[in-house]
Amino acid sequence: MTEITRILRKQTGNFLEDFRPGQVFRHKGGKTVTEGLFSTFTEFAMTANPLAKNARYARAYGFEGLLVPPGLAMLIAFSQTVEDVSENARTNREYVDMRFGAPVYVGDTIEVETKVLNITPHRKVPNLGIVHVQSTARKNIGARDEAVVMTWQRKVDVFKRDPDADLHSGEAAPDEVDCELWLPRYDPSADYKGMAHLSSPDSYFEDFEPGTRIEHSRGRTMTSEHIHLTAVLDNTSQVHCNQFMIDQDPKRYVGGQLIIFGGIPFTLCLGLSSPDVGDNALGDICYPTGRHTAPLFAGDTVFAATEIRAVRDYPGRPDLGVLEAVLYGHKFTRAEGEPAAGDAPAGWKKVQIFELERHLAMKRRSHYA
Amino acid sequence: MTEITRILRKQTGNFLEDFRPGQVFRHKGGKTVTEGLFSTFTEFAMTANPLAKNARYARAYGFEGLLVPPGLAMLIAFSQTVEDVSENARTNREYVDMRFGAPVYVGDTIEVETKVLNITPHRKVPNLGIVHVQSTARKNIGARDEAVVMTWQRKVDVFKRDPDADLHSGEAAPDEVDCELWLPRYDPSADYKGMAHLSSPDSYFEDFEPGTRIEHSRGRTMTSEHIHLTAVLDNTSQVHCNQFMIDQDPKRYVGGQLIIFGGIPFTLCLGLSSPDVGDNALGDICYPTGRHTAPLFAGDTVFAATEIRAVRDYPGRPDLGVLEAVLYGHKFTRAEGEPAAGDAPAGWKKVQIFELERHLAMKRRSHYA
Amino acid sequence: MTEITRILRKQTGNFLEDFRPGQVFRHKGGKTVTEGLFSTFTEFAMTANPLAKNARYARAYGFEGLLVPPGLAMLIAFSQTVEDVSENARTNREYVDMRFGAPVYVGDTIEVETKVLNITPHRKVPNLGIVHVQSTARKNIGARDEAVVMTWQRKVDVFKRDPDADLHSGEAAPDEVDCELWLPRYDPSADYKGMAHLSSPDSYFEDFEPGTRIEHSRGRTMTSEHIHLTAVLDNTSQVHCNQFMIDQDPKRYVGGQLIIFGGIPFTLCLGLSSPDVGDNALGDICYPTGRHTAPLFAGDTVFAATEIRAVRDYPGRPDLGVLEAVLYGHKFTRAEGEPAAGDAPAGWKKVQIFELERHLAMKRRSHYA
Repeated sequence: MTEITRILRKQTGNFLEDFRPGQVFRHKGGKTVTEGLFSTFTEFAMTANPLAKNARYARAYGFEGLLVPPGLAMLIAFSQTVEDVSENARTNREYVDMRFGAPVYVGDTIEVETKVLNITPHRKVPNLGIVHVQSTARKNIGARDEAVVMTWQRKVDVFKRDPDADLHSGEAAPDEVDCELWLPRYDPSADYKGMAHLSSPDSYFEDFEPGTRIEHSRGRTMTSEHIHLTAVLDNTSQVHCNQFMIDQDPKRYVGGQLIIFGGIPFTLCLGLSSPDVGDNALGDICYPTGRHTAPLFAGDTVFAATEIRAVRDYPGRPDLGVLEAVLYGHKFTRAEGEPAAGDAPAGWKKVQIFELERHLAMKRRSHYA
Repeated sequence: MTEITRILRKQTGNFLEDFRPGQVFRHKGGKTVTEGLFSTFTEFAMTANPLAKNARYARAYGFEGLLVPPGLAMLIAFSQTVEDVSENARTNREYVDMRFGAPVYVGDTIEVETKVLNITPHRKVPNLGIVHVQSTARKNIGARDEAVVMTWQRKVDVFKRDPDADLHSGEAAPDEVDCELWLPRYDPSADYKGMAHLSSPDSYFEDFEPGTRIEHSRGRTMTSEHIHLTAVLDNTSQVHCNQFMIDQDPKRYVGGQLIIFGGIPFTLCLGLSSPDVGDNALGDICYPTGRHTAPLFAGDTVFAATEIRAVRDYPGRPDLGVLEAVLYGHKFTRAEGEPAAGDAPAGWKKVQIFELERHLAMKRRSHYA
Repeated sequence: MTEITRILRKQTGNFLEDFRPGQVFRHKGGKTVTEGLFSTFTEFAMTANPLAKNARYARAYGFEGLLVPPGLAMLIAFSQTVEDVSENARTNREYVDMRFGAPVYVGDTIEVETKVLNITPHRKVPNLGIVHVQSTARKNIGARDEAVVMTWQRKVDVFKRDPDADLHSGEAAPDEVDCELWLPRYDPSADYKGMAHLSSPDSYFEDFEPGTRIEHSRGRTMTSEHIHLTAVLDNTSQVHCNQFMIDQDPKRYVGGQLIIFGGIPFTLCLGLSSPDVGDNALGDICYPTGRHTAPLFAGDTVFAATEIRAVRDYPGRPDLGVLEAVLYGHKFTRAEGEPAAGDAPAGWKKVQIFELERHLAMKRRSHYA
């Protein structure tokens, strides 16, 4: 037997001092959307939009087939960036200017690039700093062509490997990325009305009024399924799946237990809001900002609410309107002995876990129902 | 920021007083069968019939590809009706006259309609009543055509919203639905015998004798996976997935915990019986009646048994016979200190959870092996 | 109602005295690889090789599409043999001479045959003995043709039904099975370098040095998901999914709880090693030997390591080299009060669970990057 003379343990991911402004990561792997992945996530999140449920409907609307909903497109694209950008992160701080472009279908292969914009030290925690990056996901079209599927910036709290290391200074400008939501054209001869019973009757553009807060009716309890869901996305961060690592030093980790990958509540909140808000959207245009405000753990039940901020015409598309809203996620934690607060039942505290500014391209009832 | 001036919480589903005899629901969504959904459920249930396992075999028998087994067809079709019919139900009382028609394949899109037949108040519980409905599931064929996949009636215990509300009286007759099991023709030139090793050697029509009870050998423990399985089916009922709701008022809910969606044991019992009863069926013809007799929870282990009631010729098909049977599901619960009863081991009580009358189209050994 | 006059409980699987040298099982079922199954297992195991992730990459390399990784091919093929060979086994002893042939793609149907080589009584346990078998998996190609996908031998500890039964003696020789790893040809005009960023930069043939032990960085905690995963593979062994059976007589079963099917850590260890060892493999050639050395249970976290034993040229393929390695799996168990040992942290004991000799066909950096 060969004698072992060398032990190797490769570093995975980058630490704070490794990032340089202007640096570009062409991420490994890439990911082809299979019907397995599509089913696992689209349906997990209770997405109600028939574009992602009913291929007959999606094709009649001018899509090539079942449409990958924005939450799943985001999960796939985001996860490709984890190893290079956030495998050694404490937490994801903020999503900025997330925009959607070409539609994603089963069979498409997504590949992602990330550009580092800047690195800033944390003001209070010496071994931590903020990395600001811009990522862009493309899908291949045929053998040679490609299209931008989505682009976004994010800010993430990354650990230093060496607390005394210097950080790379400077600032790179984000690239101008041509990424505008692709929409099927309105076809006056199509029988949209004959399919109108397949989506909610009361979630057309005309139904939304700024100043309304919609408390979505349904909740969903998360289980240890999150470990499998996260692995299936190629998200390699150990804080989601390595219980032994947590057990070594629980105090170092948020909540002292496996934390659920933020992409899961991101997608789940979109899904929970779907019957009331997303059912008659042709697509999500952009998410100007978003952030996780509290961690989520197995056993928690997730709820969502949407606040309507503004409604406006969709330029060049009289059949559509733009809905500007904010999506919130929350859960309840036990608060024995504390006085009831807000709309939480006695003995419970309502904890916001997520918020996301969201612009949607909404169908007008006048044209579709 | 826009000031919030209105809080909206939409009602989901109908309450007892909302139903009117003759009322027709064209259910939302529809559902395209992906390979993900197919794999999750066909294989979850341990279905042994090679028609649902082996595409080479299915095609050689005259099907277009892997055949969606009846349990999965039922899960998909039934779940489409939950929001309108049973989101506010306490329990599903009875399945009646469930019949199968066109075969379902991966890629097919299922859409469902339900007609309300009558509403009767509960004799003992004032805020509860029985809604009797007839549902029919169709799949699209090409852009314009469609075929009936299955039709069934069910009776369901639905809550009143207002205990003092009057119920709509009257009675609508069920529609005559043309729904007869599609079967591939018998091809004397096909090499059925060359594939006979792929199914059980002892489950042909000739092997069944009325008066036999087959205790199926295998059991399957359910886990919290049921939450994911139910969501994946678009079943929106909160009693299966909202632990926070249960925690508010455990006494209101059966067992004080999340209850497993009845479609899960329905499908699982079919699967557990599959090696002994379903392996050489070309299809399930109908389920004249069926009911859940006890709830199922995560942690329970499900077993199944089949009683053979009658065997008869299949009109016009000398290669087939009709098997009439009853499928039973059961579990064991702890019964410390009670005397042993029936075939339960000491300290346990056998609890029947499900029963289903079942007619199958069985291959004859004389023609296929 | 028909009176029940006969109770039937069919035997599933064979017992030790049922096996005869030279006996051939053509296993039931067969299994078509769906995108659902592909997604569940390829991604579950964190397989990093882009051949199994990125269809664009796989096609550019000369494969027909996403390649089923060896761990999943093994899981599917192996599971087909469980009912006949090991449903009544206590444990799987050893894998021998496992070799891979034709590539497996989504849509392929796998069917498996097993030949019994010999049966030997257990030296110490009277109701147990070792069955030595050879299994071969084939996939159909078009309507008539087929190709060998993999072949392997295994030794398994099987229970006797009757402790006094005689065993069949004698010895059958293994069949000569033509099973050599299919590899796409090297195409000097292909733009391999343009795709090199999609796999690890430091796992080419040139990077491996005999005498190195690579401790793979990531761990993965297993949950009760294993019950679902095992069912989805058609593995019918009750020790993985029947908690009630365990509860009747916990002492009879390893660890007194549901044990995770060995194919799961087999595949998971391959996946955990993938970023460091498998990312630039064109395929796994063979696994000369392998064995499970300790059981795995829900809640355990799995880690993996690889020892590099030898490197050599790949005959006739200057673009490739052969890497000979041993893959190890381990977990940590609580060991309160015991002195720290090896590289386990205080309070924990490192337990090896799996080992597998492994020969891989590795790309040379000189030709591909």
